[in-house]
Amino acid sequence: MSAHLDNLRVVLVGTRNPLNVGAAARAMSNFGARHLRVVNAYEVAFREARSAVHAKDVLAHAQEFESVAEAVADCRLAVGTTAVGRRELRHRLLRLEAGGRAIRRRLAAGPVALLFGSEKVGLSNTDLSYCDWLMRIPTRDEHGSMNLGQAVAVCLYELVREGKSRAIPLVAKSAMSGAPAEAGKVEMLTQLLLGVLRSSGYVKPRLESVTEENVRRMVRRMQLDGNDAEVWLGMLRQIAWKLAGDSGEGL
Amino acid sequence: MSAHLDNLRVVLVGTRNPLNVGAAARAMSNFGARHLRVVNAYEVAFREARSAVHAKDVLAHAQEFESVAEAVADCRLAVGTTAVGRRELRHRLLRLEAGGRAIRRRLAAGPVALLFGSEKVGLSNTDLSYCDWLMRIPTRDEHGSMNLGQAVAVCLYELVREGKSRAIPLVAKSAMSGAPAEAGKVEMLTQLLLGVLRSSGYVKPRLESVTEENVRRMVRRMQLDGNDAEVWLGMLRQIAWKLAGDSGEGL
Repeated sequence: MSAHLDNLRVVLVGTRNPLNVGAAARAMSNFGARHLRVVNAYEVAFREARSAVHAKDVLAHAQEFESVAEAVADCRLAVGTTAVGRRELRHRLLRLEAGGRAIRRRLAAGPVALLFGSEKVGLSNTDLSYCDWLMRIPTRDEHGSMNLGQAVAVCLYELVREGKSRAIPLVAKSAMSGAPAEAGKVEMLTQLLLGVLRSSGYVKPRLESVTEENVRRMVRRMQLDGNDAEVWLGMLRQIAWKLAGDSGEGL
Repeated sequence: MSAHLDNLRVVLVGTRNPLNVGAAARAMSNFGARHLRVVNAYEVAFREARSAVHAKDVLAHAQEFESVAEAVADCRLAVGTTAVGRRELRHRLLRLEAGGRAIRRRLAAGPVALLFGSEKVGLSNTDLSYCDWLMRIPTRDEHGSMNLGQAVAVCLYELVREGKSRAIPLVAKSAMSGAPAEAGKVEMLTQLLLGVLRSSGYVKPRLESVTEENVRRMVRRMQLDGNDAEVWLGMLRQIAWKLAGDSGEGL
């Protein structure tokens, strides 16, 4: 049933309460997801989370990362979860029903990261900028924010549930392209592009961080496959080299 | 979306940990279920459950009963949840996907009780005897038992989720972005990019026409919307200006 969740990476970002890490691990064990990644956990003692009944194996093998970039680097798709709130989103946003279908398809091709933010504030705009798109559990507008462990459980259930609709072909871009580029390569491309934009004077110092996030999101929206990502890397390296050489600046 | 959950009665039987009552109440509030019934709660202080963030209303109106019989008396259907274990079941058992469909149909007609047992032992055979049929969340055989609050969240999600019959938007990129950029703008972008690539020495003269076609195809694969196309035009103009200025060439 759940063999395909082998490619899923559940990424908890900035989780404050170790009980919630334990609850997430338990839901993972229930539904057969084995790979837990933890970014900047508030309390390192999360491995002893008491709430992780029967999920010791998931916790024992959890990987720790210092940044979202590192945690998603080897993934072909990174999806952020959000309760949407007042914050204005500049990402594609899918309801869980549709997002789950998209993720299931992509799990067959390679690692997929599913990100959950902290209990209080969710994923930051910077965290979100590493995501290809966002997904929302269909909760009420008046009370959208779910408990972390419950949100993980609901998302994993959607991924393993048997649908009547499994066989419907979707007109997704991925059907026409090669395998999606790894997140690490997409980020490399983002950094190269940002370097070129800085050298050329496009980036205003005051707006540096905003521009960086905007560019990161825009590059993700390109949904490059592995080949096109390589071509872009080659083009940007050449442009960067030329800009550096002619202006005498180093890169 | 969730108006039909007005007829749902979530019945917690013999719950020991008040935190779990609070977690169940929170999930109910998230998904728009309002009627919580508690049978033989181990700790009567469940109304103060700290985990019931934003679910005070559900807890405040929770009804207490001394027996399952009383708690389901006014319901047209009573469904028990189970992790199935070694216990032999003498009931019809449905997976949540199918059970959820059946419950949704019945909610239109009158009150439906959905029963959850205690953390340790679940529903007893006596409790189950009040149920019309049983439902199982599709967890792994090796680790079937879910946390109570997570189980409630998953069941409620199944009841409110939109089936494919309700026209979920496809995961085509264009559906989530702005209107696609006009072809003329995409070609303008292509020409600007080619100009930058020529200035930077990326385009080998012998391969000029091949490169031009490859770049043109690749830019189309980006499937830019109008906004992103404008951003790209701005970035490329700046890069082109810088390359021209520093090398003394005109554009």
